[in-house]
Amino acid sequence: MKHHLLPVSPTNVHWGYFSKKVAPALTLKSGDRATIETLTHHANDDYERMIANDPGAESVFHWTREHKAVVRRGAGPTEGPFLRGSGEGVGVHLLTGPVAIENAEPGDILEVRILDVRPRPSCNACHAGRCFGSNAAASWGFHYHDLIEEPKPREVITIFELDTSGEPFARAVYNYVWTPQTDPDGIVHPTIDYPGVRVDHSLVRKRENILPNVKVPARLHFGTMGLAPAESDFVSSIPPGYTGGNIDDWRIGKGARMYYPVAVSGGFFSVGDPHAAQGDSELGGTAIETSLTGDFEFILNHSSLDKAMRDAFRKLRRFLMTVHHLSEDEAIALMSVAADFGVTQVVDANWGVHGSIRKNVFMCT
Amino acid sequence: MKHHLLPVSPTNVHWGYFSKKVAPALTLKSGDRATIETLTHHANDDYERMIANDPGAESVFHWTREHKAVVRRGAGPTEGPFLRGSGEGVGVHLLTGPVAIENAEPGDILEVRILDVRPRPSCNACHAGRCFGSNAAASWGFHYHDLIEEPKPREVITIFELDTSGEPFARAVYNYVWTPQTDPDGIVHPTIDYPGVRVDHSLVRKRENILPNVKVPARLHFGTMGLAPAESDFVSSIPPGYTGGNIDDWRIGKGARMYYPVAVSGGFFSVGDPHAAQGDSELGGTAIETSLTGDFEFILNHSSLDKAMRDAFRKLRRFLMTVHHLSEDEAIALMSVAADFGVTQVVDANWGVHGSIRKNVFMCT
Repeated sequence: MKHHLLPVSPTNVHWGYFSKKVAPALTLKSGDRATIETLTHHANDDYERMIANDPGAESVFHWTREHKAVVRRGAGPTEGPFLRGSGEGVGVHLLTGPVAIENAEPGDILEVRILDVRPRPSCNACHAGRCFGSNAAASWGFHYHDLIEEPKPREVITIFELDTSGEPFARAVYNYVWTPQTDPDGIVHPTIDYPGVRVDHSLVRKRENILPNVKVPARLHFGTMGLAPAESDFVSSIPPGYTGGNIDDWRIGKGARMYYPVAVSGGFFSVGDPHAAQGDSELGGTAIETSLTGDFEFILNHSSLDKAMRDAFRKLRRFLMTVHHLSEDEAIALMSVAADFGVTQVVDANWGVHGSIRKNVFMCT
Repeated sequence: MKHHLLPVSPTNVHWGYFSKKVAPALTLKSGDRATIETLTHHANDDYERMIANDPGAESVFHWTREHKAVVRRGAGPTEGPFLRGSGEGVGVHLLTGPVAIENAEPGDILEVRILDVRPRPSCNACHAGRCFGSNAAASWGFHYHDLIEEPKPREVITIFELDTSGEPFARAVYNYVWTPQTDPDGIVHPTIDYPGVRVDHSLVRKRENILPNVKVPARLHFGTMGLAPAESDFVSSIPPGYTGGNIDDWRIGKGARMYYPVAVSGGFFSVGDPHAAQGDSELGGTAIETSLTGDFEFILNHSSLDKAMRDAFRKLRRFLMTVHHLSEDEAIALMSVAADFGVTQVVDANWGVHGSIRKNVFMCT
């Protein structure tokens, strides 16, 4: 067993999509462990608290007119002219990886155990050691076309601070209504329509003392985690799918074990969309989006019900032909119409299928 | 409530596919009942026992060089030259219907209750009143490339008789190895590759006294039942899908209630592939395929979690804004990160979603 480290950097992340085409950032063997850093794609809602002086975060979010460290953001087109930017924000999550698992092949199951999850403290001297996150009540939220107060509609960012001194919880620091933001390439973003656009705080009005007596229980977890699908080269990170992805279940935190079907050679595991807390439904569009680091263990399972079914078929045929003296054709007809094959278990590493036939089909002779 | 009757006839069946394009054989309202006849597509394995002198079965299976009562069999091409025949046997099940349900629209759920299932007795004077079925150990069976005895490979038909005088059961009558059969259009079928080809019993060798002391418990059920998918005009009846179809679970018999998502206006329910008995796995490729008649009740549910979720969101927002004096933006941020929305029930006709938030998020002030 080897323990790997995968820090965030422009070459160790991909933004907004799962892909079988991205070169692995790390390759490991079944049984290995890895400490993997992840960044929230909402960090630029408060650059000072969540990016400034953090070398890893700064390297990934770096975007000036001259240089954009991670150009493609989303599964959309990468040749302009752009409406929103390269990749067009068709998928938004910053994902670390992919991690290739040696010998993983389509049909295998990759078990991913989350051993630990830790928040990523601010590196800015003003906030050093403290942890922050952002909640966006966004245009894709369930509430957006169903608002009561004016102005309608509106997007609202709420910055939270995470307290991990005891049982971890979060408190709101301030909020602001989103205003049009112009990115370094000159594209104006009237709504939150492209990830990683830095919010100019001179253009928003902060409201302090919000949710003043509310403690939100922390539920550190990864909103998006999974393997590369086989069907397409670039797959938006937004809809969850059969290889996992943006499941957004707060139970996918420390202690969780996820089982993903391997769709491409190597599996190509990626993780991101880190959350400090989320309720079931993620109603407003996001969780408390905060950068997290996790310790993971990877176990490759080659088990398959296919071989177990083949084995059970042959054994029941032998039983019927030897004990009950049936011909092969009699045995097969009887198995098809009267024997029940069931799944014994799919949790004990060596999966099982059992074939059964009731004794009372054989009349006394 | 009205009780309808849908007998088999060339215009009341379609063969080998689900389709939103087939004109409804019957239109009914939610709450109505219908007695629906179904025919096994394997009846021609023993024409004398399962078709002869049965006006409904004869009308559907009628196929001479001059006239083929049901031309299309399968979702494949209907213009030749054919390898196997019109529709090419891409889908094989004789289905009765479609039954259109008034006001059924995509997003609704159609509940189908199976009130009763009865076998269809032979009309042939030699076998009058007795019920028969056919089991094919076929080329698509799990055993086919894994046989022990010679000749390999082979397909085997076993004819069963169903005894319903007491607790119903089936006994084998005879079996034979499939030999090449020539259909009325001159196409030779070396294997069972097209449905409804009449087996010339002068070309097969019957073996009597098989499975002599075996009673197979009857499990009358419909192997294939469901609604028309939206995605395509003609969908093979073989793979089960999200609107039901060829599920082949022997539990779908008397007393079962199935819930199908409506994909096209009217729903377009069809049923067939009747089985006298099947084991879990349907190992050899088929069940005891036998014609059955069922009594069905149709209940259209417009319930949706969507509206329940909308309702729960508004109520929890009101609670937070009135009882806890939060602004709308505070309430929405808090709901997104700390409130859990769950499915209350999806079984009591009026489906429910509940939103909950822990009291201890509100600290004493």
